Amino acid sequence: MRGFGRRFPVTEVVDWIDHQIKPLDCESLDLHAAAGRVAARDVVSAVDVPSFERSMMDGYAVRSSDTEGASTYNRLSFVVVGESLPGCPSGARVESGKAVRIMTGAPMPQGADAVVPVEATEPHESGRQVWIVEGAPRGKHVGRVGEDIASGDVVVPRGRKLRPQDLGVLSSVGVARVDVVRRPRVRIVITGSEILPAGTPPEGFRIADANGPMLESLVRRDGGELIASDLVADDETYLRNAITAPSDVVLVTGASSVGKEDVVPSLVRELGELLFHGLAMRPSSPAGVGRLGDTIVFLLPGNPVSTLCAYDFFAGRAIRLLGGRSAHWPYRRAPHRLRRHLNSLLGRTDYARVRVTDEGVEPLAIGGASVLSSTTRADGFVVIPESSEGFPAGALIDVWFYD
Amino acid sequence: MRGFGRRFPVTEVVDWIDHQIKPLDCESLDLHAAAGRVAARDVVSAVDVPSFERSMMDGYAVRSSDTEGASTYNRLSFVVVGESLPGCPSGARVESGKAVRIMTGAPMPQGADAVVPVEATEPHESGRQVWIVEGAPRGKHVGRVGEDIASGDVVVPRGRKLRPQDLGVLSSVGVARVDVVRRPRVRIVITGSEILPAGTPPEGFRIADANGPMLESLVRRDGGELIASDLVADDETYLRNAITAPSDVVLVTGASSVGKEDVVPSLVRELGELLFHGLAMRPSSPAGVGRLGDTIVFLLPGNPVSTLCAYDFFAGRAIRLLGGRSAHWPYRRAPHRLRRHLNSLLGRTDYARVRVTDEGVEPLAIGGASVLSSTTRADGFVVIPESSEGFPAGALIDVWFYD
Repeated sequence: MRGFGRRFPVTEVVDWIDHQIKPLDCESLDLHAAAGRVAARDVVSAVDVPSFERSMMDGYAVRSSDTEGASTYNRLSFVVVGESLPGCPSGARVESGKAVRIMTGAPMPQGADAVVPVEATEPHESGRQVWIVEGAPRGKHVGRVGEDIASGDVVVPRGRKLRPQDLGVLSSVGVARVDVVRRPRVRIVITGSEILPAGTPPEGFRIADANGPMLESLVRRDGGELIASDLVADDETYLRNAITAPSDVVLVTGASSVGKEDVVPSLVRELGELLFHGLAMRPSSPAGVGRLGDTIVFLLPGNPVSTLCAYDFFAGRAIRLLGGRSAHWPYRRAPHRLRRHLNSLLGRTDYARVRVTDEGVEPLAIGGASVLSSTTRADGFVVIPESSEGFPAGALIDVWFYD
Repeated sequence: MRGFGRRFPVTEVVDWIDHQIKPLDCESLDLHAAAGRVAARDVVSAVDVPSFERSMMDGYAVRSSDTEGASTYNRLSFVVVGESLPGCPSGARVESGKAVRIMTGAPMPQGADAVVPVEATEPHESGRQVWIVEGAPRGKHVGRVGEDIASGDVVVPRGRKLRPQDLGVLSSVGVARVDVVRRPRVRIVITGSEILPAGTPPEGFRIADANGPMLESLVRRDGGELIASDLVADDETYLRNAITAPSDVVLVTGASSVGKEDVVPSLVRELGELLFHGLAMRPSSPAGVGRLGDTIVFLLPGNPVSTLCAYDFFAGRAIRLLGGRSAHWPYRRAPHRLRRHLNSLLGRTDYARVRVTDEGVEPLAIGGASVLSSTTRADGFVVIPESSEGFPAGALIDVWFYD
């Protein structure tokens, strides 16, 4: 029962994560399942979009030269020789003085090189003719072949997190499946013989698990695939099995400190490599990172605020990078004025929960790291980096918003 | 085949949505399924957290008065009379000169009122004693009953979108199920006989559906429950069935203009109320909104950029509000400098796709609304409101980022 020796700076652990962690291999997915996933390679279009000349308006396809000089004072009469609908072109050829009625998206008929929109026409006394009251230069309202996408264009670059419109574009070039980075498989292991299953009322000296539901939600947010979330007692055999079972990432909460009950660091050291243990940060100083083969193990302190903090600084970052995503926090950041000073220690990174009102940033008075309600009462948090001793009242500081 | 008469301002449609749409009824969900859902009522804790006095550190529980004056030059010896572990309290009572070894989270033994952390102790020559080298005032490192959450506290307010830590707090107060606003059931109807199923290579004059995969992804992003996504031909019976089937929201793409093929507006008018049709915006001017009983129908233009734009301005907003969420766009917004002027018309709302580089905001040159790749090449978009004729080069304007 001794304290930590050296405490690792947060930046050292983050650097290790950024340099060591590469995106996982890829898998092929149906377009409908690919939203929010990350493209594993460039997707190149094999087709032109549009693949034919099409009208961009409802109106009349004509020869542009025929419309010269048309105006409401100089209406020009055209004979309507056919109709072109989307997917159903007109067989008629547009000769001089002729027009084909055309719908938006419909193929241009042969001979025509412009579309006069319906708003620039007037009905003719004869049902088979139309008055045109506005000239249309060559190419007007005509969508050219390959105008949207040309064959050979990269439509979705490697590394792109697939947005709704990316799926639309892939679909329109005939791509039904897409190669995406595999989601990291994550195993959550909640330790502690005093812990009751999540959502259980506290009973005597036993408390309900807060970490499981919180971590499951965080893992899903960051694109991880949850393969197990188990509440284990402090049974060493069970723990050993849980952290050596196949997965890309293991999150172990509790049992990460240096007390005699803290078996996880010893287990990780025995079975693999304990890379960092004991960090210069508050909260979460007992956190750690280890490696067992290709599996990365994060030792998260048992108390929920420390777990949230250590997850966000390290585990979440690793899960995002494994899945090909940006390392950055998925939190909104905005500068706000600090209402009162916020102290820290040089060499230590602080994670301070804050409320933000019209008057500015108010650090929450917190009794201890274990006060999880400080994160639910908070609007967000402020990071005081190890190079700083804190901020004076009135300073403009970046707030990360939990929403 | 005539143009629209009056065109409705975007603000009028948005106002209607904001005033008419209320959150749906609620449903009860298991905590594990509730991430990102919206609390339908305040959740009040029935318990204190912690429900017992506990240690916030690994160390020794003592009487604070016994530690007065302790320092490395004045080590005080305590007899260790027991051990308190999380969930497993010590039966011993702490009398003067006595200590109980205690772990973080473990119950405080009777008689003790402070914890001396292990770092402020030194091992004693006798295994049954410990040196204390730092004083601990009353209450030091002791978590008080109800310090985190008191019985009767609102732990999650009504309307809160449940964040990971909210689930943690709910779990720790023994709440296993939570009442959340029901997700709006959304039906997507893709019309157009020229449309091939999503992900099909274009064939002759037929094009693949881009809207289905895009809208599905948007609906899920905004918390909607997709109950159907069907590609229908322009068959009126099928269309009639699709828009009258039970749902909270129907999105119909294509067939929304005023051409003779555009049967959807007439159908909505016949079966319910066509509230808005023809909007003062670019793109998406043929968009519309109708109501059939409790179902809201959005008429989205067939071309994908217009569909994206009309979805984001109207349908997405309605889906978010029905689900109890914020009306606001889920896009990140940041001010950037415009590189060249961006023109619009007074009275018309423009949705301009832009790229943002170190040099500033570059509007994308776009041949037409149907150029979906303009939204995938873009980093985001700029809105030019109806009250503005545009922005000059050099203006600082808000960019909404698609990411």
